[in-house]
Amino acid sequence: MSPRARKLARGVALVGAGMSKFGAFPDKTSRDLFAEAFTATAKSVDKGIDTDDIEALYVGNFSSDLFEGQGHVAPIMADWTGLVPKPATRVEGACASGGVAIREGILAIASGIYDVVLVGGTEKMTGLPTDQVTDTLAAASDAVYEAACGFSFPGLYAAMATAYMAKYGATEEHFMKVGIKNHHNGALNPKAQFNKSIRDLMESRMEKARQKGDPVPEWREEIDFLKDPKANPVVAWPMRLFDCSPITDGAACILLVAEDIARDFSTDPIYVVGTGQGSDHALHEREDLTTITSAKVAAQQAYEMAGVTPEDIQIAEVHDCFTIAELIAIECLGFFKPGEGYKATEEGLTARDGAKPINTSGGLKSKGHPVGASGVGQVVEIWHQMRGEAGARQVPGKDIRLALTHNVGATGGTCAIHIFQRR
Amino acid sequence: MSPRARKLARGVALVGAGMSKFGAFPDKTSRDLFAEAFTATAKSVDKGIDTDDIEALYVGNFSSDLFEGQGHVAPIMADWTGLVPKPATRVEGACASGGVAIREGILAIASGIYDVVLVGGTEKMTGLPTDQVTDTLAAASDAVYEAACGFSFPGLYAAMATAYMAKYGATEEHFMKVGIKNHHNGALNPKAQFNKSIRDLMESRMEKARQKGDPVPEWREEIDFLKDPKANPVVAWPMRLFDCSPITDGAACILLVAEDIARDFSTDPIYVVGTGQGSDHALHEREDLTTITSAKVAAQQAYEMAGVTPEDIQIAEVHDCFTIAELIAIECLGFFKPGEGYKATEEGLTARDGAKPINTSGGLKSKGHPVGASGVGQVVEIWHQMRGEAGARQVPGKDIRLALTHNVGATGGTCAIHIFQRR
Repeated sequence: MSPRARKLARGVALVGAGMSKFGAFPDKTSRDLFAEAFTATAKSVDKGIDTDDIEALYVGNFSSDLFEGQGHVAPIMADWTGLVPKPATRVEGACASGGVAIREGILAIASGIYDVVLVGGTEKMTGLPTDQVTDTLAAASDAVYEAACGFSFPGLYAAMATAYMAKYGATEEHFMKVGIKNHHNGALNPKAQFNKSIRDLMESRMEKARQKGDPVPEWREEIDFLKDPKANPVVAWPMRLFDCSPITDGAACILLVAEDIARDFSTDPIYVVGTGQGSDHALHEREDLTTITSAKVAAQQAYEMAGVTPEDIQIAEVHDCFTIAELIAIECLGFFKPGEGYKATEEGLTARDGAKPINTSGGLKSKGHPVGASGVGQVVEIWHQMRGEAGARQVPGKDIRLALTHNVGATGGTCAIHIFQRR
Repeated sequence: MSPRARKLARGVALVGAGMSKFGAFPDKTSRDLFAEAFTATAKSVDKGIDTDDIEALYVGNFSSDLFEGQGHVAPIMADWTGLVPKPATRVEGACASGGVAIREGILAIASGIYDVVLVGGTEKMTGLPTDQVTDTLAAASDAVYEAACGFSFPGLYAAMATAYMAKYGATEEHFMKVGIKNHHNGALNPKAQFNKSIRDLMESRMEKARQKGDPVPEWREEIDFLKDPKANPVVAWPMRLFDCSPITDGAACILLVAEDIARDFSTDPIYVVGTGQGSDHALHEREDLTTITSAKVAAQQAYEMAGVTPEDIQIAEVHDCFTIAELIAIECLGFFKPGEGYKATEEGLTARDGAKPINTSGGLKSKGHPVGASGVGQVVEIWHQMRGEAGARQVPGKDIRLALTHNVGATGGTCAIHIFQRR
């Protein structure tokens, strides 16, 4: 039986959103980043917000336990945002921790127990050496049947990518084109960890070679740069360095309120019209590696609740932890048929000026992927785009009334999807 | 502003509850234990339950990340209980993870999105050496300002205990009496890790000495045994070994449904009439170490929602991770005035046959404390007691209509309180 999508007992709206800069910050802990995101969120509320008005806090966090030796992060974030003694709850769903925390915030308001809830996500990842970060992330896979057998996430997604190539005829270049697009968007996002296009990176490397008197590589197009194993080495074939999202420190917050009081806080609130969540078996147990059941289940719930179809969604932030993940995402969401996602990307349909702009923020690939914060960061982008406040990366020529976020944990053990409407 | 207690948009009832045996199980992982608890829960449902009927799963877990190298536990528990692709969400609040997961399950049903929710808690702790367990638990304190300065939980609670002694004149013996009481109860609980009274333990040690031809200790009363530093060494004064709850593997589950369908599952459902949650600063920031603000705040919310007073509560399971914690708990809950908890315990008021029976299960002290599962385990005891199914430890001479559970995370950074009614 597929989980039913029901109406919420009362509506919920978004009246504020903000994030810290994403990047590598040796001097900052997850709590510093969270406070930064909260400050940005408070400033984004049109009519202002007093911490006294906030009744509860939900925090998405994958594993400060392993990254910082700090479990029980929710009351710490409550303390650093002035919310003690309000209820503060950590929700964890690997890289979907943020999305799942948002869902809990929505359900809590719908339950009638709160009117105003702060939801945030935070992760401090760069404090460990890279190999330990890889091991820490592998704890989100099945530690008994996957991580213990040597699988880490580049390998798991590489298995999905090769299955996708074999089934649908996609090539390495198709994956690279996802990265090129997302870096183009991220280059326009001042909060992105890598706010540089692949062209910027390529030209800067050529310029450095020139200055050093080294032979200048013969890259003409961005794809030449990405196909060069010196510039873009293989991590786990067919996933190369620029197919992988980076290791990131960052935090993001949103402020949710009961729909009937949204205008007390915002002159232009964004309404939550759909929420969906699903789970799946670990990757080693699945029959088909080219799709993610939890995402399809969650999408179905969210669409049903919102009463909309994939065609109605104008922009989406999807979970591109690896480039292959974006292709699978846009197919699971019904934007494109199975096996058609890579063709659509190649045709430019998912570009910022395409028919269905995907990851205008730069995505996890370019904006950065502080895992517990990423799902909340997606909503920050939707907030800006829907209100026409996305600056240089504002989607051109669209009055955005319906947008979607898609947040995946691990290889899809968890997926949380939300649909937002501007009225 | 104290968090408001509101009515839930719809009522929620408990129609099943069960737990694994608590103890040390070298061959079992957290998922094995969870499956065991789920099986016991399914069996406890009067009219039976089909996994197809269950719409979502909430899992309380402190840190399988650190204990087992396994983050993202919720979809794994969903897999092992046949619930994939239903939404599966991990909730973490240190040792209150179970209680907070229950609250999320309640709010989710009240929101209208689900009718039937499984809530469980699980923790596998004994796979690590004891010193690493202590370090792992210390991650629930403030890792920057407490753990990093050498504080672990026996030390933190010892600080609270010495403050309590100084302020109210309690002695070490008063703490010991909490342990004696709880071991008396646990001796009657076949699922308890230590289902032995202090007298049983004492007599067995004397018998062993006799058999070996060693000098037999001159213990006459249980308190003599606990005062003997050889039998009961100091861990962090005034907390001795028998003031500390053990390191435990275990899991527990409950089945929650919307109130209007409770009789479809149970001939004798138990209704959730109050829920409360609060947060607090880390211990080093507090002005008063003898009380826990999050517990007082959570209790106030739960009492208000239920429309009852502390006097109305007939039995309670409270968070006795250390003996001092039980004394603070029964004061925060308003059962006894500040500084009167130790006198009430000495007078036998909290004994199984006393006026206000506390921890009839044996409490964390004797039943065991698999941290993420403990809050759910408390509700399992309430379920049995309220339905008159607690066997040898059934509270005598009481028709239990109102009961309470009190679950604390760390030194009170989180507290979740629930009130249950039998109609």
